[in-house]
Amino acid sequence: MSTVDTVLNFSAGPAILPSAVLEQARADILDLDGTGIGVMEHSHRGAAFTRVINEARETCRSVGAIPDEFEVLFLQGGASTMFALLPLNLLPENRTADYIHTGAWTKKAIADAGTIRSINTIWDGSDCDFKHLPADEALQHSDDPRYTYYCSNNTIYGTMWAQPPASRGWLINDASSEMFSRPIDWDRHDVVYAGAQKNLGPSGVTLVIIRKTLLDAVNEAMPSMFRFDLHAKNDSCLNTPPTFGIHVMGLVFKWIQNEGGLEIMADRNRHKASVLYDAIDGSGGFYSGHARTDCRSTMNVTFTCPSPELDAAFLAEAEDAGMRNLKGHRSIGGLRASIYNAFPEEGCRRLAHLMADFADRNG
Amino acid sequence: MSTVDTVLNFSAGPAILPSAVLEQARADILDLDGTGIGVMEHSHRGAAFTRVINEARETCRSVGAIPDEFEVLFLQGGASTMFALLPLNLLPENRTADYIHTGAWTKKAIADAGTIRSINTIWDGSDCDFKHLPADEALQHSDDPRYTYYCSNNTIYGTMWAQPPASRGWLINDASSEMFSRPIDWDRHDVVYAGAQKNLGPSGVTLVIIRKTLLDAVNEAMPSMFRFDLHAKNDSCLNTPPTFGIHVMGLVFKWIQNEGGLEIMADRNRHKASVLYDAIDGSGGFYSGHARTDCRSTMNVTFTCPSPELDAAFLAEAEDAGMRNLKGHRSIGGLRASIYNAFPEEGCRRLAHLMADFADRNG
Repeated sequence: MSTVDTVLNFSAGPAILPSAVLEQARADILDLDGTGIGVMEHSHRGAAFTRVINEARETCRSVGAIPDEFEVLFLQGGASTMFALLPLNLLPENRTADYIHTGAWTKKAIADAGTIRSINTIWDGSDCDFKHLPADEALQHSDDPRYTYYCSNNTIYGTMWAQPPASRGWLINDASSEMFSRPIDWDRHDVVYAGAQKNLGPSGVTLVIIRKTLLDAVNEAMPSMFRFDLHAKNDSCLNTPPTFGIHVMGLVFKWIQNEGGLEIMADRNRHKASVLYDAIDGSGGFYSGHARTDCRSTMNVTFTCPSPELDAAFLAEAEDAGMRNLKGHRSIGGLRASIYNAFPEEGCRRLAHLMADFADRNG
Repeated sequence: MSTVDTVLNFSAGPAILPSAVLEQARADILDLDGTGIGVMEHSHRGAAFTRVINEARETCRSVGAIPDEFEVLFLQGGASTMFALLPLNLLPENRTADYIHTGAWTKKAIADAGTIRSINTIWDGSDCDFKHLPADEALQHSDDPRYTYYCSNNTIYGTMWAQPPASRGWLINDASSEMFSRPIDWDRHDVVYAGAQKNLGPSGVTLVIIRKTLLDAVNEAMPSMFRFDLHAKNDSCLNTPPTFGIHVMGLVFKWIQNEGGLEIMADRNRHKASVLYDAIDGSGGFYSGHARTDCRSTMNVTFTCPSPELDAAFLAEAEDAGMRNLKGHRSIGGLRASIYNAFPEEGCRRLAHLMADFADRNG
């Protein structure tokens, strides 16, 4: 339920979806396209679902301005499974890769890749509590990495790369918590991927956009479901794909298109985030933002009150005002407002209003 | 849409779901449990989804009469991903496993396992066109396999094991197309798993029921998402699980429970299947069943008319009568009626009626 009148869902993911998407998904559960059969009950090889997946793929291409040199794949297992599949597919035994460590998810990516190949951490943000991202000069590139890996938005810490990092080899981006929040520079990237459940749809689908030339390099001595090249050759129907999730994702792509596209999303997201960052910066020091100002995310706004007791009191008042899921991740505490594409600006204003009022009363 | 009045969905999977399940899923898309937030939009760490997954797990245990010695896991990637995960988790480098080859899905399981370890095919049904399953005496067990692997229902060929095979080591069953169509003998099995999209829910969730002692044997030098033990320790929330799919699966478990449980399902399924097998056997040779009579499936009924032209004519008449997805798999042609738990008996009678009428007119 996404109406501002009732409940405001600040969840970091799974997260709020556009009302129009929910209404359509709801209708399609009993009858897709007048077939008399619901969307979950259609064969993935039949005409109805083929229409669904082709349209989702084409709308994705169009919304994302994805060049023909890239494949669009719908996979399963979330970003976490990609932590394994990327080195399995793209790192031959004699090669290495460079990872930029900017938070909890890059930590997992590095650990999982390390079970497969020896890889390099070329910057480590744990020294600064992940409050900022590295300048290009701080990256200690290895000589000849097969790829450079980064995460463009760090959900837990609320940091976001303004530009992709300097890179050697292919550039791979885990964009899970900001995918399609803004345009993507395809000249700079070779793989961009995202678990759906933040900005794109329900959990259980992973969108993987990969430069086609990389598919020629895939390690073929692997189980079929691990191989990007086979998923591409089979149009993401190598086995039964998560049909309902792909359908909802396609509806979200269409919603973005109808709203005006990624430039419009980026404008709105910047504006929504600024409402909250202004509330932090205008509080006379009552609220502290976690992320350094030049690294602030437009998707996840992280901050604390002057004490854990006040954090708890704020959360309780927010809950009373219908604001849900504002508690920060356990690793940094405090508060976190996740304001993905589908989150309404009015919701940010309501939260900013409560923040100002709460600071007045408790400052 | 599951009412017999309109369209009959004989799809092999994704397949028909109970109407009551679809209605509930539809309602929950806008608002789960009066939270004001839809089921797809709830955090997987929040109270609402925790209730959902715990209830799904407990109802699964209760419906399946699953002993405490087993873990119930909700994973992603379908049965095809299990083809890789089983040997990765359960086969150390110096061990082998025995596979019983009864159709297209065991072929893939054998091929994928073969990319990881050297394994043995201890019976090969390709010699008999997969028309029957082996007697225990025909199995050429190896000396000390870590496990024996079989597929209890072969969707494409319409064969089903009446009893589990004789086995050495652990016994693993791919039950994808018959899971919860009948009670399971837990004394005989160590892993039983199923992609959801035939008898259990939407595609995108894999139900894995595994004896806990096997988790101690898991290879730990692997990416986290590949490890059964980590999924178990994290109650299937190691990463963001497919929340909507798990919710629908939980509703299906509850539906089975409300209908009376697995014995009732087994009775109904035997009866439904007998309506169609009687139509084949009573046609004076017009229809030929693919499966040998002692190996017939209660889930997938496979048969042919006297010629491919008559198969096509039959399909066209069925289509006109609102019967969808009766075309046999391309590998064996002919016709296939998939009549999972949610498929109504009345639908079988309508098909049997058309079969008799069509044979009269064309015999």
